[in-house]
Amino acid sequence: MNDVTTPGSVFSLHYLRAFSLFCIGLVTLCLSSSGYGQDPLPSWNEGATKTAIIAFVTAVTDKDGKDYVKPSDRIATFDNDGTLWVEYPMYTQLLFAFDRVKELAPLHPEWKTKQPFKAVLEDDMKTLSASGMKGVMEIMMATHSGMTSSEFSEQAGNWLRNTQQPRFKRPYAECVYQPQLELLGFLRSNGFKTFIVSGGGIAFMRPITEKAYGIPPEQVVGSSVVLEYQIKDGKPALIRMPKIDFIDDKAGKPVGIQKHIGRRPILAFGNSDSDMQMVEYTTSGKGKRLGLFVHHTDAAREYAYDRKSHIGKLDKALDVAKENGWIIVNMKKDWKQIFPWKE
Amino acid sequence: MNDVTTPGSVFSLHYLRAFSLFCIGLVTLCLSSSGYGQDPLPSWNEGATKTAIIAFVTAVTDKDGKDYVKPSDRIATFDNDGTLWVEYPMYTQLLFAFDRVKELAPLHPEWKTKQPFKAVLEDDMKTLSASGMKGVMEIMMATHSGMTSSEFSEQAGNWLRNTQQPRFKRPYAECVYQPQLELLGFLRSNGFKTFIVSGGGIAFMRPITEKAYGIPPEQVVGSSVVLEYQIKDGKPALIRMPKIDFIDDKAGKPVGIQKHIGRRPILAFGNSDSDMQMVEYTTSGKGKRLGLFVHHTDAAREYAYDRKSHIGKLDKALDVAKENGWIIVNMKKDWKQIFPWKE
Repeated sequence: MNDVTTPGSVFSLHYLRAFSLFCIGLVTLCLSSSGYGQDPLPSWNEGATKTAIIAFVTAVTDKDGKDYVKPSDRIATFDNDGTLWVEYPMYTQLLFAFDRVKELAPLHPEWKTKQPFKAVLEDDMKTLSASGMKGVMEIMMATHSGMTSSEFSEQAGNWLRNTQQPRFKRPYAECVYQPQLELLGFLRSNGFKTFIVSGGGIAFMRPITEKAYGIPPEQVVGSSVVLEYQIKDGKPALIRMPKIDFIDDKAGKPVGIQKHIGRRPILAFGNSDSDMQMVEYTTSGKGKRLGLFVHHTDAAREYAYDRKSHIGKLDKALDVAKENGWIIVNMKKDWKQIFPWKE
Repeated sequence: MNDVTTPGSVFSLHYLRAFSLFCIGLVTLCLSSSGYGQDPLPSWNEGATKTAIIAFVTAVTDKDGKDYVKPSDRIATFDNDGTLWVEYPMYTQLLFAFDRVKELAPLHPEWKTKQPFKAVLEDDMKTLSASGMKGVMEIMMATHSGMTSSEFSEQAGNWLRNTQQPRFKRPYAECVYQPQLELLGFLRSNGFKTFIVSGGGIAFMRPITEKAYGIPPEQVVGSSVVLEYQIKDGKPALIRMPKIDFIDDKAGKPVGIQKHIGRRPILAFGNSDSDMQMVEYTTSGKGKRLGLFVHHTDAAREYAYDRKSHIGKLDKALDVAKENGWIIVNMKKDWKQIFPWKE
């Protein structure tokens, strides 16, 4: 330190000053690129919801605070349909199944006269709807099994990337909510591991989750068919069998979480009564927890539906949210922008 | 830059030189901590096996090479019993089950006269062995179901951390192979995600995999019982049911991999014929792949068993290894040190 105090060392003083400024600049750059000093959730309007989310993340990452959670326990789970991407007026995976029926029809001439396939081919939604869960399952099995895992992955991925959602005129893979993309990123930049826990098919979602949400295939939990290992044309392959393996919905969600993740999340985000058990399981753990539901209230920019909807019904959760400390995110009020593209 | 060329700036020159040395030190530190210039596998003896492993990792991480694999596809799967930890002379999980039977016996007076429990309580291995798979399953269900996931996790974790392997006089959780710990670390430092894919119970392994191997619970694939979500004493809990959900063994391993990971590994490491399908599935994918088997050849330092063993039988895999390009790791020859502690 003697160097800089000698009269001759004016240049080194300059140098030191420049170096100090450089250091300050570097620190500023690091802090700003790690999210400090800029809004981590720009598509969320200011208000109680945004404040609660940021307060939660701040609390669990504050090493000196009473609510600190070590990084390995920072698990966040998100439902997919209606929570991360559009589910209305019909679940995306069902629309994919209908399109596959039409595509496969030439190989199945009997479908022209056999329900529920006939109804799909004729766009007869009334008959299809009357066929109920049994009809839907028949369509799902006919379109979701019999091929290898890689073949199905390609079919689903291509369809999601190339089929337009009719209202928004964007591929389904892009009909994702911008505020949620920001939240996923904000959580990850704070040491969280983010997972999808959806009633939808695990194999249907995986081809696009990495690009759409930054979530790799191994962090996707969903419903599945039984897989069978076979040597097909001399090559090992996994064949999708026409049999349900697991339904990752309602009380199945905490089970799916334990199967795949092996620990209880500290944050869970859903949008319908089907997510109640996941949120209940999450928020009943020890320490600070956060449970949230998207409430679709915005018919102008997206859709408005809740208690009486056949898709993504949100009813009981609305009733018990307050007493359980769950946050109901009001899409119209809380989200400044809905989609990644300009509306 | 003018500063340092003026005659009066001798001190700043000193300062610059010191700063340069500091920078060089920093770079050296970074390089050495990232593994360059030091042996990444010190417990592996020099030879064809070690060379092949290092060559593989170098090839798939060389951005300009023809065998480059992007980080998200660098998936490595490891069997557990006999590959990462000791399995001989009896699978660890079975020993845990026997101990649990003894612990639970006061609650089950009928076990004193009821097989196969009677045999366990009397250490009568002959009768137990004669009870076959049916007997084993009865013992497994009696000791592995009926409690919550968290209760079981605590039971398994405590047992693994506190019960000594009789020969090595170390807790089972520490009877892990040092060369494999180094390999796991070497792979991860080269952008791989490492997974366990074991016939053992997923819930049995998870309590210790993070500490023992640096592998978090969500990267463990294994056999499982059915879980049920229930509200128990007013609290949501996952109850372990006396029913097999999935057997992650043999042809089940590629299925377990697809269920949990959703992509084909590029490296798979096993030690018995039960790992053949996992290794076959892995090495039959496109691009550069590596399949390996530990061959237990070291009765002096660990155990020697293969073609005729009832535990970890390695027979067919030995026959087809060469034609399939699989590497047989000769424990005695290839491993300089077996365990993390000094032998």
